Amino acid sequence: MVSTEDRRSALLDAAVAEIARSGTRGLRVEAVAKRAGVSTALIYHHFTDRSTLLHGALEHIGIRADKFTMPRAGSGREMVIEMLLSEIHDDDEVRVNAAAWGELRGEAIFDVSLRRLTAGLTQRWADDVATHVRSGYADGSIRTERSTASRCADESRADELGVQLTTVVEGISARWLTGQVTTARARDHLRTIIDALLGPRP
Amino acid sequence: MVSTEDRRSALLDAAVAEIARSGTRGLRVEAVAKRAGVSTALIYHHFTDRSTLLHGALEHIGIRADKFTMPRAGSGREMVIEMLLSEIHDDDEVRVNAAAWGELRGEAIFDVSLRRLTAGLTQRWADDVATHVRSGYADGSIRTERSTASRCADESRADELGVQLTTVVEGISARWLTGQVTTARARDHLRTIIDALLGPRP
Repeated sequence: MVSTEDRRSALLDAAVAEIARSGTRGLRVEAVAKRAGVSTALIYHHFTDRSTLLHGALEHIGIRADKFTMPRAGSGREMVIEMLLSEIHDDDEVRVNAAAWGELRGEAIFDVSLRRLTAGLTQRWADDVATHVRSGYADGSIRTERSTASRCADESRADELGVQLTTVVEGISARWLTGQVTTARARDHLRTIIDALLGPRP
Repeated sequence: MVSTEDRRSALLDAAVAEIARSGTRGLRVEAVAKRAGVSTALIYHHFTDRSTLLHGALEHIGIRADKFTMPRAGSGREMVIEMLLSEIHDDDEVRVNAAAWGELRGEAIFDVSLRRLTAGLTQRWADDVATHVRSGYADGSIRTERSTASRCADESRADELGVQLTTVVEGISARWLTGQVTTARARDHLRTIIDALLGPRP
């Protein structure tokens, strides 16, 4: 028997795939139902309207990303690099997730109701990166900023790096998704920028 | 008397403003006509269909950007920084241009006919940045990569920097346009990443 939670998750997978394929503004609830192999009524049973479905899809993208971006054990620096590189990868799920995220983020410029949710997910992502940067400061794999650095300066630099590095991933991801750079080149660019921002390995 | 060129340019200004306000997929030719204070027929006289109008708007964004991003004289490094920072600025024209560009770039994921034009404009922009990087290598304001650097390695690194730096601008611009970072913070982030990528001042 399929649990309600699994059923809901399968419907959201279909919604994310449809957004990646045709964008948010072209998103039709009927198309999501068809892709999931269910009735339109069932979609409305789980999500009262199109807007609720979009919000659900956005949260679902975050949950899916958590799964494939979770770095294995390593130094703080290695975890930062692995987590960010995992966003650009020749894998259908990764590509679909990136396309849907980019699309919903673009839509948030015009749809204020999506803006808060997008901002919250972005903040959580940046915070996760910042946590690994702090591990890197602690284990010595990322050099602290200044020889006279106070703990506070490093704290604030870790947060900044979280914002800057995730922003860079989004910029490169957009070029990758339009085929302007190959996956390999996109990952090379990302690695170069990460290394420049984290500074030389101690 | 208004020249055909000026009239066309005014119509494209209206199209860019409408794209920035409501996106490409919500773009209605009637709304562009209303904003420009002309008849819908006149729009169709200049642009045979909606797709031609979108292509015209995309080229127009490039021309508008050339005007406000042209750096004044300075070292190569200063010109790189000035040119990139001019893309994120509290100025209506700059913001409208950035929003319309982001929107058309996003649309290019779904619309193959926009893809080639977007890629061409992006390449031209990256090439302009690379030219200033080369000036920086020549005037000593940007350190060459390796102490043993051959001319070829620097040539190729200049092109890479053109791609990487413009990508970073796009990533930061998207966060700025959704209000996730203020203009001042966006510019700070951009300056930090530029400095990290160009390396320490010689």
